[in-house]
Amino acid sequence: MDEDIRKYERVIIGIDPGTNVMGYGILGINGKRAEMVAMGVLELSKMESHYMRLRRIFDRVTSLITQYLPDEMAIEAPFYGKNVQSMLKLGRAQGVAMAAALERDVPISEYEPRKIKMAITGNGAASKEQVQEMLRRILEIDRDAMLPQLDATDALAAALCHFYESSRPTAEKGAKSWKEYISTHPSKVKK
Amino acid sequence: MDEDIRKYERVIIGIDPGTNVMGYGILGINGKRAEMVAMGVLELSKMESHYMRLRRIFDRVTSLITQYLPDEMAIEAPFYGKNVQSMLKLGRAQGVAMAAALERDVPISEYEPRKIKMAITGNGAASKEQVQEMLRRILEIDRDAMLPQLDATDALAAALCHFYESSRPTAEKGAKSWKEYISTHPSKVKK
Repeated sequence: MDEDIRKYERVIIGIDPGTNVMGYGILGINGKRAEMVAMGVLELSKMESHYMRLRRIFDRVTSLITQYLPDEMAIEAPFYGKNVQSMLKLGRAQGVAMAAALERDVPISEYEPRKIKMAITGNGAASKEQVQEMLRRILEIDRDAMLPQLDATDALAAALCHFYESSRPTAEKGAKSWKEYISTHPSKVKK
Repeated sequence: MDEDIRKYERVIIGIDPGTNVMGYGILGINGKRAEMVAMGVLELSKMESHYMRLRRIFDRVTSLITQYLPDEMAIEAPFYGKNVQSMLKLGRAQGVAMAAALERDVPISEYEPRKIKMAITGNGAASKEQVQEMLRRILEIDRDAMLPQLDATDALAAALCHFYESSRPTAEKGAKSWKEYISTHPSKVKK
């Protein structure tokens, strides 16, 4: 375990799983302030078998969880893909990363790329570079400390998106009507 | 650990992963003889969340590996599916089952449903019921002892298919040409 992690009230691990590269980012939260604790990529060599890659994803996610003791996991998860073959492979990569979290009782939330881009930049069609630059500014990361790999920043962006989503008031997030909002928030009704 | 499992030279676990039901079958091997050791299904309730189902698959496969100490895992894995959504879900279910095996260093082999049907019945288009009946005869399982669930027999069939495949002479399985066969089997060449 990384002793420095104890200074945060809450830790979120963001994962961008893929079968060629897996990105990860660790966010430490105190109150409304989020800080980048770590970010990185796991390069999965073309030489490795499909199973060896899955194993390395599982092992790395397990060791990140042991090191940073995250309270939650956020995964960047596209819901649509080019073809069934690539979706099956992506599903497996997501599955082994999820297994590592589920084994340690870390709850998982998943976000579509578009949703993450919207949360970070206000534009669901933003480029990965735009997401990276906004992330750098929001988290006040030095240009030198920012890993250039877009898979790492995508993972960190997933973690930050989850932080924003989980900080939003319930009404905004869940209530489908005023009636529902009022019934769940009786104290907000002026008598 | 199940003490009875020690009487086998080799143990194969067959898995048919799905997001509604996961089937499993354990095959014990002595020489050329295969026996059914256990078979069953894990029913994943519609009430459970997607993540809870994945967790239950991971937990069950882990406990089966702890109990039966399989040397190998065989997975029934369709390579094509109806749509990208179902393939992503299937990939995740396969991924968590694979993670449980990879964590314990159990090597994985996967077989398409058609290949399994062909190996068991000689007909790649056989029905699940035909596979079940052939399996019952080959493994000499009493009608009463045979679980009726087709997911369980599919999993057992995957394990038996893997046993057949791994017992075939190398030439039949791998060599792509006489030249390759001769180069890898010099002793077979008449001088």
